[in-house]
Amino acid sequence: MDDFKLDRRLESDSDAVMRTGLCELRLSKDARWPWLILVPRRADITEIFELTPLDQVMLTFETDMVASALKKITGATKINIGALGNIVRQLHVHVIARFDGDANWPNPVWGFGKAEPYVADKRDAFIETLREALSS
Amino acid sequence: MDDFKLDRRLESDSDAVMRTGLCELRLSKDARWPWLILVPRRADITEIFELTPLDQVMLTFETDMVASALKKITGATKINIGALGNIVRQLHVHVIARFDGDANWPNPVWGFGKAEPYVADKRDAFIETLREALSS
Repeated sequence: MDDFKLDRRLESDSDAVMRTGLCELRLSKDARWPWLILVPRRADITEIFELTPLDQVMLTFETDMVASALKKITGATKINIGALGNIVRQLHVHVIARFDGDANWPNPVWGFGKAEPYVADKRDAFIETLREALSS
Repeated sequence: MDDFKLDRRLESDSDAVMRTGLCELRLSKDARWPWLILVPRRADITEIFELTPLDQVMLTFETDMVASALKKITGATKINIGALGNIVRQLHVHVIARFDGDANWPNPVWGFGKAEPYVADKRDAFIETLREALSS
């Protein structure tokens, strides 16, 4: 666990929100969708099935917690959850709020178009709302 | 559980492989990628966080079992796991074997191009190999 080091691309493409039990929770810098990323603090893990069973259960419950908070605060049509890792191999789980008619709806967000930056105030307010939802 | 009825689109787009503890395991009819789908046998569930905690753990372990078997029998570069449901709302989890240079690599499979049908013999052989891997 001490050997864990966040992948550089994940670090540059997202902002820290909080640490959950197993994971670092981060917000994608792409403002087109409310897009969270959970990164288990385990070194050299690429696939979910490489985690211990206990870590898998932790990841499941942390994903659950984040997905239901995201649904609640955004009123999303659908939450999209994905662990792809075709580009960044460090295990990370995407939790994204999707809305009927959003960019690339109903297709996936990954690999679509160009990221749009957040306005800093809006990003900070969203992170604050999210932290509150996760601690209530 | 008795009220569960497989969504018609999932039924027409995939073939039955086996029943796992919680889920129906199915093979997508799109031969471009080895593409499995787990459908929890629970009525009226759209999001993973709507499942009970026990069912979430079951789904996690069945996904783990299927993903590691798929990796083993295909030698995939990366397993992609996703629960999107933007089109078909009945909860289902995709487990897909991806290869460097495959159709749409490194982007997602969903919404890309047109499905290519399996040759029946090849599909049956793959299902057989998968069943064996899952029971060993």
